[in-house]
Amino acid sequence: MKITALAGGVGGAKLAHGLSLILPPEDLTVIVNTGDDFEHLGLNISPDLDTVCYTLAGLANPETGWGRVNESWNAFANIEKLGGPAWFRLGDRDLATHLERTRRLKEGKPLSQITKEFCEAWNINPTVLPMTDSPVRTMVETEEGELAFQEYFVHRRCEPRVKGFRFDGVDVAEPAPGAKEALQSADAVIFCPSNPWVSIDPILRVVKQINKPVVAVSPIIGGEAVKGPAAKMYRELGIEPSALAVAEHYRTILKGFVLDNADRAFIEQVESMKVKIRAADTLMKNVEDRARLAQDVLHFAGSL
Amino acid sequence: MKITALAGGVGGAKLAHGLSLILPPEDLTVIVNTGDDFEHLGLNISPDLDTVCYTLAGLANPETGWGRVNESWNAFANIEKLGGPAWFRLGDRDLATHLERTRRLKEGKPLSQITKEFCEAWNINPTVLPMTDSPVRTMVETEEGELAFQEYFVHRRCEPRVKGFRFDGVDVAEPAPGAKEALQSADAVIFCPSNPWVSIDPILRVVKQINKPVVAVSPIIGGEAVKGPAAKMYRELGIEPSALAVAEHYRTILKGFVLDNADRAFIEQVESMKVKIRAADTLMKNVEDRARLAQDVLHFAGSL
Repeated sequence: MKITALAGGVGGAKLAHGLSLILPPEDLTVIVNTGDDFEHLGLNISPDLDTVCYTLAGLANPETGWGRVNESWNAFANIEKLGGPAWFRLGDRDLATHLERTRRLKEGKPLSQITKEFCEAWNINPTVLPMTDSPVRTMVETEEGELAFQEYFVHRRCEPRVKGFRFDGVDVAEPAPGAKEALQSADAVIFCPSNPWVSIDPILRVVKQINKPVVAVSPIIGGEAVKGPAAKMYRELGIEPSALAVAEHYRTILKGFVLDNADRAFIEQVESMKVKIRAADTLMKNVEDRARLAQDVLHFAGSL
Repeated sequence: MKITALAGGVGGAKLAHGLSLILPPEDLTVIVNTGDDFEHLGLNISPDLDTVCYTLAGLANPETGWGRVNESWNAFANIEKLGGPAWFRLGDRDLATHLERTRRLKEGKPLSQITKEFCEAWNINPTVLPMTDSPVRTMVETEEGELAFQEYFVHRRCEPRVKGFRFDGVDVAEPAPGAKEALQSADAVIFCPSNPWVSIDPILRVVKQINKPVVAVSPIIGGEAVKGPAAKMYRELGIEPSALAVAEHYRTILKGFVLDNADRAFIEQVESMKVKIRAADTLMKNVEDRARLAQDVLHFAGSL
């Protein structure tokens, strides 16, 4: 079974890792959100790409989900000491990724090519693609005005109330080389449990259409996001956050939906949307959980 | 006694440190070579400025003379792992300096202002000035063609035979704000034991004239440089490397010359150039040596 997965941050990376533990590498492509990308200290930082790659490579920090395991913070501490910007924490090992990415981008290499090279260096065998090689920037419309995503997410800790989102550059962004082909050749497309508003939507805006069966895994369990601001965003946009809300979010393209066993109460309502449903334990606390959920999702997708 | 010192790399930094241990901070200005500056990994790196500042702040690595004490190399190891350029080693703490310098330069701040801010953060009390805020780049003319300084010095380990030097940009470079004033208000100008060809000459080319008594300290002891390629450069340019060769190098502007006790044989020849001379123990193995040599040099300068 050939799978193309769409993923954003930590939850998405975990399921992508689970899928990589089961599928042969040639049967898995992960298309990653780059709307969170930004420039900081002159570096081109791609937080979601890095989270997915670090997780697939076993280099991710298991405590935080983002950043590197066994990380040191000596550069960062000295930037702080010099009075530099301290709101975005950069570990020493992580810095290498940003420095090398920035250097290669300046040489004119596309982000997808750089990602391929990094995956080789990190022994990542499935294909990992940024959604696009063009700059797309998620802008968060808030009651305090429009904020660039990392400004909203990290600097302002998601505090400003959200009114909407804009994906700057999305209208002219082409999918990264290989992304369309991966979506066309897939037997199923899996939306990993990532934030629908700011992780999956930007990818969908870039790839525009998906003609293969889509299975989404809810990032909302029991009305709350496992991590990140998805539930808060739903609330501020006037929608009760729930697995049901996620299914409705994707309803026009959804064939199957995986929600947590804690959310079985929504099964009937989702089924009434003519979407097939599977309840599972979707919380991924360890590597075994990732593999088990991936297996559940693959079985379900195979049954559609 | 007000002193302005010209300095380049490790030896120059050590004497500048010695002077800072004796003089009140308001009486010491150190003008530092920036001809070695270069861009690497998108970072603006000023090796001599950093060596001088780290040394004055007690942050320098005492083993190497360059770089930071208690340094870690996690970013560098991961840049290597990704296949990035590994010929110029960047420590994690040191990286912070380059990242912050680069960020502030991009904001439009002049290098002299950034250096001032860094000195404040590092509790460095004497005035440290880059020779200029303009880009001046030391180019080494070799038998293999012209090489940018760090390419020659670090990447090629000073192996190509030297034919001459060119200081790209020097003709339009103005001295950094405060440099002319420091030279005019000084009671004496001290040339630290730095490489005459690539540390002191570029500064002299920028500041153009010095109307105060100049005292130079020889970086050559017993025909060899304590560190770096000065002796090799003299040889390749057809000049026998010696304290005498250094005195001749500076003869048009020299009032006093400090050579090592090992080089007393040259005293008469230097005196015949109408240059006052002082023999001293010029090798600085520890902080006490730095202070003692600084004291010797100051006494000598005061006697001229």
